[in-house]
Amino acid sequence: MKEFAVREDARRNHARILAVAQAEVAAHGATASLEQIARTAGVGSATVRRHFPTRRALLEAVSHERIETLRLRAQDLAAAPDPRPALLSWLADLLDYSLTARGLAPALAEGTDPVQASGCAAVLGEAVNPLLAKAIGAGAVTAEVTVTDLITLVVGIVMAVEHRADPVAEATRLLGIAVAGLSPPTRT
Amino acid sequence: MKEFAVREDARRNHARILAVAQAEVAAHGATASLEQIARTAGVGSATVRRHFPTRRALLEAVSHERIETLRLRAQDLAAAPDPRPALLSWLADLLDYSLTARGLAPALAEGTDPVQASGCAAVLGEAVNPLLAKAIGAGAVTAEVTVTDLITLVVGIVMAVEHRADPVAEATRLLGIAVAGLSPPTRT
Repeated sequence: MKEFAVREDARRNHARILAVAQAEVAAHGATASLEQIARTAGVGSATVRRHFPTRRALLEAVSHERIETLRLRAQDLAAAPDPRPALLSWLADLLDYSLTARGLAPALAEGTDPVQASGCAAVLGEAVNPLLAKAIGAGAVTAEVTVTDLITLVVGIVMAVEHRADPVAEATRLLGIAVAGLSPPTRT
Repeated sequence: MKEFAVREDARRNHARILAVAQAEVAAHGATASLEQIARTAGVGSATVRRHFPTRRALLEAVSHERIETLRLRAQDLAAAPDPRPALLSWLADLLDYSLTARGLAPALAEGTDPVQASGCAAVLGEAVNPLLAKAIGAGAVTAEVTVTDLITLVVGIVMAVEHRADPVAEATRLLGIAVAGLSPPTRT
């Protein structure tokens, strides 16, 4: 029983450190303080290092966890009654993730886009496909569009604005334009 | 008179080499053959080198010439009777240029986007502004969109697709989606 309790304790620490790390990385990017993460999680620095031996290991775990969150979110949203706002909400989440992930990219790899690289786009595309299909089926999104189109547009927008003064505002604005198109709204 | 004739000859050679180089670079990218350029232009390799001492100098001149062409094209299109197709045609030209220019970027600089870098975006933005204003004035484009939005969208799309098997087709498709928006076309 003691061994089980130790393992259970370690599992809980791991989850808590990861949750805190996600928030810290979202706020401060790849340079988030490991000491601050340990303090907020209520564990010692040695415990953080036992679970995540290097900063890179921690950042990879955070990145993986956020992709998993996006995947589950797409599944939840597929049950929403109105598929178009559900799809747009997911794209906004993907945009947020990509903006942070681009910041992590230099710490994790050679500047390649972390969504398009390493199969993330495939995983996310598969996850959001039912939601897009539902929106198309409801006549709320043009049948021409694929999940690859949507993910590529978000990735491109994020890449194009990452050196701007306010990437989040710029990217959100551009995604809004791409979603609405260039034509003026028709008056009814 | 002899001195004038020599200068006139040099000017014509310069223009001819540059025109041939544009076509070769468009077809083969930054690795276009300088020997082939000399042959097609009907001059010797030494003449090419006198006008463009290094490959980099030639590529810079080609890039500058193409920006200038885009600038003049925007001016011409501002006089077109129907501003929306004129604007879309210019965006397609910008997309073509950006796709080639991305290929030139590693040869010219440190992977920065050649349209957004070095004031190109500002020059092009100023050039296309009257055309966009006319399209907005005619109610053919939403008043919310700025030239910076359009250029940034094109740049982002090009960055996102540059490693795909067919970047031109992908980029054209994504620009079409961004122009049309995600809603299905309204039936009339």
